[in-house]
Amino acid sequence: MRHGLVIINTGNGKGKSTAAFGTLLRAWGRGLRVCVVQFIKAETGNWGEIQAARKLNIEWHSLGDGFTWLSKDLAKSAEKARHAWTLAQEKIASGAYDLIVLDEMTYTFHEKWIDVNDVVAWLKEHKPPELHLIITGRDAPDALIGFADLVTEMREIKHPLARGIKAQPGIEF
Amino acid sequence: MRHGLVIINTGNGKGKSTAAFGTLLRAWGRGLRVCVVQFIKAETGNWGEIQAARKLNIEWHSLGDGFTWLSKDLAKSAEKARHAWTLAQEKIASGAYDLIVLDEMTYTFHEKWIDVNDVVAWLKEHKPPELHLIITGRDAPDALIGFADLVTEMREIKHPLARGIKAQPGIEF
Repeated sequence: MRHGLVIINTGNGKGKSTAAFGTLLRAWGRGLRVCVVQFIKAETGNWGEIQAARKLNIEWHSLGDGFTWLSKDLAKSAEKARHAWTLAQEKIASGAYDLIVLDEMTYTFHEKWIDVNDVVAWLKEHKPPELHLIITGRDAPDALIGFADLVTEMREIKHPLARGIKAQPGIEF
Repeated sequence: MRHGLVIINTGNGKGKSTAAFGTLLRAWGRGLRVCVVQFIKAETGNWGEIQAARKLNIEWHSLGDGFTWLSKDLAKSAEKARHAWTLAQEKIASGAYDLIVLDEMTYTFHEKWIDVNDVVAWLKEHKPPELHLIITGRDAPDALIGFADLVTEMREIKHPLARGIKAQPGIEF
């Protein structure tokens, strides 16, 4: 029996977004209709996953303004995040997908660009029952965790940066 | 500066293998040379990720005998796991890859099919310094965690099975 899951990948460790992309790959492998909306990363970043999506012809919207701590215009960053949510709402309500990933969305709640209670209320009304949804990002708010079916915390046990090893292309970005 | 990372995804939660596959997708997107060896899953399982790998022409070896708790012949399962490690050793030592995933390998340590100390000793001698390696599975042994650069614990916070929702194709397999 198909039951659209609301899945949250949160925590301070690695693997929140990559687990979403791995699930996307698995779903895509089975011929499911998939789509990604990224709330922080910008298209211009040309990240490994964006390059992969282009090669695979997977629908992938990187609508963010880059990392919030590097933003020079937070009003513009907020506007971009709200635009990403508007597009995500269209995609979710359309019924045209089996799996949608909302990558790094939780940061928009922390920045108060989007209200998590509004998002949960909207999803309760508009998410098709069969649609799987994955939301990633640190510190998922309780309202979102309460609404979700499957929540995993990625906990950092050991990180190479502590030993002075820099982020590796193709692995960490 | 390229530094081949040894990455462990462990814990009782979802996302250990999918985070490895998402990283693989990211690396593949950047044109890195990637390969997967699965120690438990069998080729005949026709899992979503195996179907995706076929479509992408990614080198993917599913050499396991299926889930250990379903095995009718544990000696054969052990033999298959050891064969998978032999193949993994060839791939690792070859220098022909940038990223190799050893999926669900930790179970072979718990079953005592492969000795984790032998694996760590062999890797110390034979893993090319630039090769990234991801090993997944529950209860990663301390010897492996001590050797690794990056360790993440995937912790289950909430699981749909607790509410009677069965595993969903394309999402959980």
